[in-house]
Amino acid sequence: MVETSHLIWKEESRKEVYRSRVLSVRDTECRSPEGVLRTFTVIDSSDWVIVVPVLELEGKTRFLMVRQWRHGSQELSLEFPGGVVERGETFEAGAARELAEETAYRAGRLSKLGTMSPNPAIMSNRVHFYLAEDLVPLPDQNLDEDEFVDPELVPAEEVLTGMGRPPYIHALTAAALALYVRNEKSPG
Amino acid sequence: MVETSHLIWKEESRKEVYRSRVLSVRDTECRSPEGVLRTFTVIDSSDWVIVVPVLELEGKTRFLMVRQWRHGSQELSLEFPGGVVERGETFEAGAARELAEETAYRAGRLSKLGTMSPNPAIMSNRVHFYLAEDLVPLPDQNLDEDEFVDPELVPAEEVLTGMGRPPYIHALTAAALALYVRNEKSPG
Repeated sequence: MVETSHLIWKEESRKEVYRSRVLSVRDTECRSPEGVLRTFTVIDSSDWVIVVPVLELEGKTRFLMVRQWRHGSQELSLEFPGGVVERGETFEAGAARELAEETAYRAGRLSKLGTMSPNPAIMSNRVHFYLAEDLVPLPDQNLDEDEFVDPELVPAEEVLTGMGRPPYIHALTAAALALYVRNEKSPG
Repeated sequence: MVETSHLIWKEESRKEVYRSRVLSVRDTECRSPEGVLRTFTVIDSSDWVIVVPVLELEGKTRFLMVRQWRHGSQELSLEFPGGVVERGETFEAGAARELAEETAYRAGRLSKLGTMSPNPAIMSNRVHFYLAEDLVPLPDQNLDEDEFVDPELVPAEEVLTGMGRPPYIHALTAAALALYVRNEKSPG
């Protein structure tokens, strides 16, 4: 067991400073391991899910990905489907729903790959990763009116090779890829 | 070439709604591919660097990682060293500095692994990933007064296996790991 008490801070108070439709921002006062009080900025948001949909086609492992415009980076991103977990929804149900809405495929089998913090320094929410297999096509996508999303089948090898250069710019897609690679080496 | 014009939005205006020491938040008005105006929340921040420091010890590949408290997730995280690029600093210089400050090791060789958006949906900044090799120990860490960071040598295999469960909770560390794995398979 690693001794860690000299690293641990204690949160003492929170004050919301901004709230929008998708996130809120707070100043959070924390006492350091040495007893000093400091203020940090933390972003609160609902949890997210990201789905790694896999199928074999013409002898190649392919990912079912989505190409869409991203308003933060102001560019197109080719990434795994995913989104915000809705109130009252399980993470798995959220993963199944986002997959169906964005790609028009249903997963015959969904398995958990892991849970992380998208950014533990400044965000309090979690992102839950799922592997989707035995994909079955649905009649159509089911997008919000401000969503414009193209599903695309991409060879897994191309995604691994391309990651870190456009259009493979999404760090959470890369995080999902790390879990996928680990899972391939030692499933479960 | 993929036809993408039906996916592209155009930003029309920005309004800052909050600013702290480390980030600012803005409402950004964008016109959809179908001509409809919508408002999105975007977080602006300086660029970040993350360093994957590798060394061989007792016949095992090991990562030099850091254990620290994270104020967003309110827990300890074991992750790759990294931080905010300072004004006037190159990304590579920022990577070398963060590595030295947090781990007390200097990199004899630093090579770029890739650049991503930490979250292209809501963040405008970039994160730059570097591989650090030929590590040389320095006399001491050089931490800010609110930083409490323990460096730790961890077998690479353990990190890959543990990712997605505490203390391996940082999605950007997982993203870095994906780039490291890719680099091992096809360097450069």
